[in-house]
Amino acid sequence: MRALTVTPGIAGSGTLRDVPTPERSPGEVLVRTLAVGICGTDREILEGHYGASIAGHEHLILGHESLGEVIDAPEHGELKPGDLVVGIVRHPDPVPCEACAQGEWDMCRNGRYTEHGIKELDGFCAEYFRMDPHFLVKLDPGLRDAGVLTEPASVVAKAWDHIERIGQRTSSWRPRKVLVTGAGPIGLLASLLARQRNCELHVYDRDQGDAKRRLVSELCGQYHNDSLEAACALGADVIIECTGAAVVMAHVIGNNAPGAIVCLAGLSSGSHRIPYDFARLNRDLVLENDVIFGSVNANRRHYQLAAAALASADRQWLLRLISRRVPLADWHTALEHHPDDIKVVIDFLK
Amino acid sequence: MRALTVTPGIAGSGTLRDVPTPERSPGEVLVRTLAVGICGTDREILEGHYGASIAGHEHLILGHESLGEVIDAPEHGELKPGDLVVGIVRHPDPVPCEACAQGEWDMCRNGRYTEHGIKELDGFCAEYFRMDPHFLVKLDPGLRDAGVLTEPASVVAKAWDHIERIGQRTSSWRPRKVLVTGAGPIGLLASLLARQRNCELHVYDRDQGDAKRRLVSELCGQYHNDSLEAACALGADVIIECTGAAVVMAHVIGNNAPGAIVCLAGLSSGSHRIPYDFARLNRDLVLENDVIFGSVNANRRHYQLAAAALASADRQWLLRLISRRVPLADWHTALEHHPDDIKVVIDFLK
Repeated sequence: MRALTVTPGIAGSGTLRDVPTPERSPGEVLVRTLAVGICGTDREILEGHYGASIAGHEHLILGHESLGEVIDAPEHGELKPGDLVVGIVRHPDPVPCEACAQGEWDMCRNGRYTEHGIKELDGFCAEYFRMDPHFLVKLDPGLRDAGVLTEPASVVAKAWDHIERIGQRTSSWRPRKVLVTGAGPIGLLASLLARQRNCELHVYDRDQGDAKRRLVSELCGQYHNDSLEAACALGADVIIECTGAAVVMAHVIGNNAPGAIVCLAGLSSGSHRIPYDFARLNRDLVLENDVIFGSVNANRRHYQLAAAALASADRQWLLRLISRRVPLADWHTALEHHPDDIKVVIDFLK
Repeated sequence: MRALTVTPGIAGSGTLRDVPTPERSPGEVLVRTLAVGICGTDREILEGHYGASIAGHEHLILGHESLGEVIDAPEHGELKPGDLVVGIVRHPDPVPCEACAQGEWDMCRNGRYTEHGIKELDGFCAEYFRMDPHFLVKLDPGLRDAGVLTEPASVVAKAWDHIERIGQRTSSWRPRKVLVTGAGPIGLLASLLARQRNCELHVYDRDQGDAKRRLVSELCGQYHNDSLEAACALGADVIIECTGAAVVMAHVIGNNAPGAIVCLAGLSSGSHRIPYDFARLNRDLVLENDVIFGSVNANRRHYQLAAAALASADRQWLLRLISRRVPLADWHTALEHHPDDIKVVIDFLK
């Protein structure tokens, strides 16, 4: 079968390669790939900055945002041939830490997890893949091609899960006014989940195009692309930072409502020193009981929350997040930056 | 009766003054003051930087860390003459915000709370005070003069309550290794509560004297006064920052264990700009699911937690936190900085 592989650490080593098709195996599920979403992590791996293959293997099959159809599954299990499924990216180490031992591998404390398409496990960008059913999540069949958004939605479902659990430190808390910074796929899915909670929604992004503005306005949210300061001055009590830009992070953590919860869901790269008044930040955090927290990855429960959130969303809106679909043979065009790109997907049916 | 009063905004205006003794009043509790603790906020008010008197009043009675004995109480209530009590500092506005309406005035969202001895309510540094019984907390009589530590302990009880509630974002969490920065009364009481939770305890303070080191070692904790970097390198999963120093805060938020919860309980003053790598902080927070939060004040539930924590502590250890007791007539000596000072108390029985 064809698979998109990379030699981790070597820039430009991404290539389509023929690899053995996985066989049916008792206790496991064989999945035919329908689509794989491409994100910044894939770009970093293709540029040689990140990623690790299975010990002893030269190549790593890329891809962690999956959508597939079950071809073969263990009898009497939850999954049946024809089911629409998504693979869970992270797996715990066989000798798990306390968090991994309880299925909370997103909170892994010793860093010995593995990740499909990223870290010591082959990814989903191949015509077939085989999985332990515990690491597959069944989707509502009505989602169809929008199901490829489940993995990014799982990241956002975890972020919201933690926002709400942290909010429970007080009995009077509920999320009201939400500011999302960054209107990429993560920011827009975070916005969707904000609206599913009936929050007033504000989205900040520097993009001047129409696509993102329209997607936000279809959620009855307000799109702000003029000034971050003005967006922060609205006094959101939940801020979900999805740009990963150090200057945006530095601003939002100190400019929000009393009792605000700031979730950092975007990842910064490199180094970015900013002169910053920590005495002022201290007073803002302490006197207003504010919280800042980081969130990464997702466990099975979050994938299930994501699948439910997507199933109850407007499918047409979800499909508009997928700005381009390219056939596997043209995988390299998926990495190009086109204006109005949001989520680009490799479509295995094309 | 004698009371220590100040004219808010005027440095050096602190003075002992004769004021009318409060009368017995139906539905209210009359309390004879036994002791009042002095803290940094009192100093700021006496220096004219902070504080507000009741509308229309020139003077504010100082003091918010109280200990008293009930003289008169409504019949059939919880409190009886002779009971040891502490007054709750913050009161909600008559038109409360959502948090205040649920008794969570420590999370007040509109800033319209009042505070005894600080903001628009007379304090406890007078021979008698009168209170609504709902704002008095009954102490274990065995605590006796150590009960004056209840108010600072309530601040710490809230901090720990929020640490534990935030920790519940994952089912596998429990506090293990705790680093407390700053071994003043707040830091030492936070340390006591860490040990009551069976945590490994590390305390960082620059003080080279013996008193703080001994108090920490009596809790079976380790005292570090050499290097903050070395203390942070121990990888605490709970950090309680009690110095309010911007440089300490800036260091601890980026140097801790995966999944760490950093509670800021110390308040910075002024302005302190530090060049800081926010890209690195972002990665530390996001990839490790870290939390930073601020905590201020305490509600009735936290006072009750504090009273229980003090009642189950070693009373001799608690009394060693009180480094000096001065009579009301010598109140100004309570403000002096003596070596080995921890908590200085104005003793109304002296």
